[in-house]
Amino acid sequence: MVSQRQEFAIGIDIGGTNTVFGIVDHRGDISYRGAISTRKHNSPDAFIDELFEALQPAVDQVGGIDAIRGIGIGAPNGNYYNGTIEYAPNLPWKGVIHLRQLMTEKFGVPCSLTNDANAAAVGEMMYGVARGMKDFIMITLGTGVGSGIVANGQLVYGHDGFAGELGHTTIIPDGRKHKGTGLHGSLEAYASATGVALTAIEFLEKEPSKDSLLRNYAKEEIDSRVVYDCAIQGDAIAKEVYAFTGKVLGLALANFVMFSSPEAIILFGGMTKAGDLILDPTREHMEKNLLPIFQNKVKLIFSELKEADAAILGASALVWEMKGS
Amino acid sequence: MVSQRQEFAIGIDIGGTNTVFGIVDHRGDISYRGAISTRKHNSPDAFIDELFEALQPAVDQVGGIDAIRGIGIGAPNGNYYNGTIEYAPNLPWKGVIHLRQLMTEKFGVPCSLTNDANAAAVGEMMYGVARGMKDFIMITLGTGVGSGIVANGQLVYGHDGFAGELGHTTIIPDGRKHKGTGLHGSLEAYASATGVALTAIEFLEKEPSKDSLLRNYAKEEIDSRVVYDCAIQGDAIAKEVYAFTGKVLGLALANFVMFSSPEAIILFGGMTKAGDLILDPTREHMEKNLLPIFQNKVKLIFSELKEADAAILGASALVWEMKGS
Repeated sequence: MVSQRQEFAIGIDIGGTNTVFGIVDHRGDISYRGAISTRKHNSPDAFIDELFEALQPAVDQVGGIDAIRGIGIGAPNGNYYNGTIEYAPNLPWKGVIHLRQLMTEKFGVPCSLTNDANAAAVGEMMYGVARGMKDFIMITLGTGVGSGIVANGQLVYGHDGFAGELGHTTIIPDGRKHKGTGLHGSLEAYASATGVALTAIEFLEKEPSKDSLLRNYAKEEIDSRVVYDCAIQGDAIAKEVYAFTGKVLGLALANFVMFSSPEAIILFGGMTKAGDLILDPTREHMEKNLLPIFQNKVKLIFSELKEADAAILGASALVWEMKGS
Repeated sequence: MVSQRQEFAIGIDIGGTNTVFGIVDHRGDISYRGAISTRKHNSPDAFIDELFEALQPAVDQVGGIDAIRGIGIGAPNGNYYNGTIEYAPNLPWKGVIHLRQLMTEKFGVPCSLTNDANAAAVGEMMYGVARGMKDFIMITLGTGVGSGIVANGQLVYGHDGFAGELGHTTIIPDGRKHKGTGLHGSLEAYASATGVALTAIEFLEKEPSKDSLLRNYAKEEIDSRVVYDCAIQGDAIAKEVYAFTGKVLGLALANFVMFSSPEAIILFGGMTKAGDLILDPTREHMEKNLLPIFQNKVKLIFSELKEADAAILGASALVWEMKGS
């Protein structure tokens, strides 16, 4: 049966603090946007109840639940195969949450779930700079470092649905310890907003007599935004922080390229606001660590999707990819 | 048109020294085997002429060229998309060789070409321990370190056909320089037979007063076989060499797991003869460097295909995968 009515997808991005959602059509136009708090709900059932209420007026506007083909969700530690959120450290719900099943029961439409970075990659492939690409890697540089990998035109989920944790790969053996994971020298320990702040503090402590605008801030005030502000004012240490971060990130990207040989690596998230400050050293060190057959081929680009929209678009795009729908 | 006759594939593995070939049926039974020298032919045309002559009697035995569905070739720097061998450092032919086209013209049957490690992965998926797996990584540990990656049941070729150069990923930044590539700290610099010999020599020089069976050999006599022989006789330095090699390899494998989350990593090639000497430290360090969600899940196993057969089987398996054939 082919429906003649316009169909919509609900896209939901569950973050540690807030959950944003929207109703999206086939072209990627978001007709309704909204947000609720993730954090205030101790149980996923209470969270879903509020989400249902919050979405109701928007669903009614597009013609009721019959006009909704499905719900796509991006969530930290979201597992595509199981439809679960599993042991997400930043969410209030512990253990394994069968979110796909709970959502389907509540809304009465099919639901698809993956992790937030995978959702962003799907969104990029459908509506962003990766349109038409069959092989690319999406790296989200925010508080943490996430990734979504597309090979042969498909998301790489791995045998268990957890593939693409590139932020946790070791780049500097015995390097900086990651507070959350306990692993040493992972990409996330350096190339996240948190990592940039830590690098700045380390550099300030290593050269205590060197002048820096960063010294106008208390240690606990230094975050990636402060480092950025100082760097664009020409501060030497702040610029070194970006040079170093780009060196680590570039080395990591070279390894990723030699794994899946993507057409492009797409950088996304708060850290990309640093523009060439981060892009230039990253590109330099990526190229330097590549075999010649890979050099000067990989596009290293920023996402052009608005950050708030990308999450919703990516999640909604999962719906159009659902099998049998 | 469905043919009732039995069909065969020719599998060819082009190595730096020799080229081995065989005629293979659907079940992976190799009915004829042969080999010619790769090295003695300065032009690919002369090489193909000899190959054609060498294969002729075997082809006749199975019923002539009409019984051959196609030819599959594994070759260093073989490019699946282009059907070329591109700048292979270990082959006598320089530049870009359009081998697929030359072979098709000479033999009059379709030909498919990929790099040797990718061919091995396909062989493993069709006839080996990876049967039924949709996500696995094949690592060949020989003179060099090669790899073939399967995700979502397909080989990962990347946008340009060169994906899966895991031997050249950097594991130890600023580490040992690779003679061939000039890159520092790559997996191949440590986890290849060449790397093992270099590590042994380094360890002997670092502790000049420490007794070792390895000191019975001249520096240029020390190769991975000598290190193995000494290690199984209980030599402390030789055992340390394997412990260290496994540490580097394990760290690398952990990174690969967090990339594509394979069901298994299959180790193949001469270095696997060291058995638990290499497997135990590799497994230990792989697990240690994984996020908890990946721990104790990935099968780390040796290939069970005979090394000589695996190359032919893998190459021949490309034929059954050809589109439209």
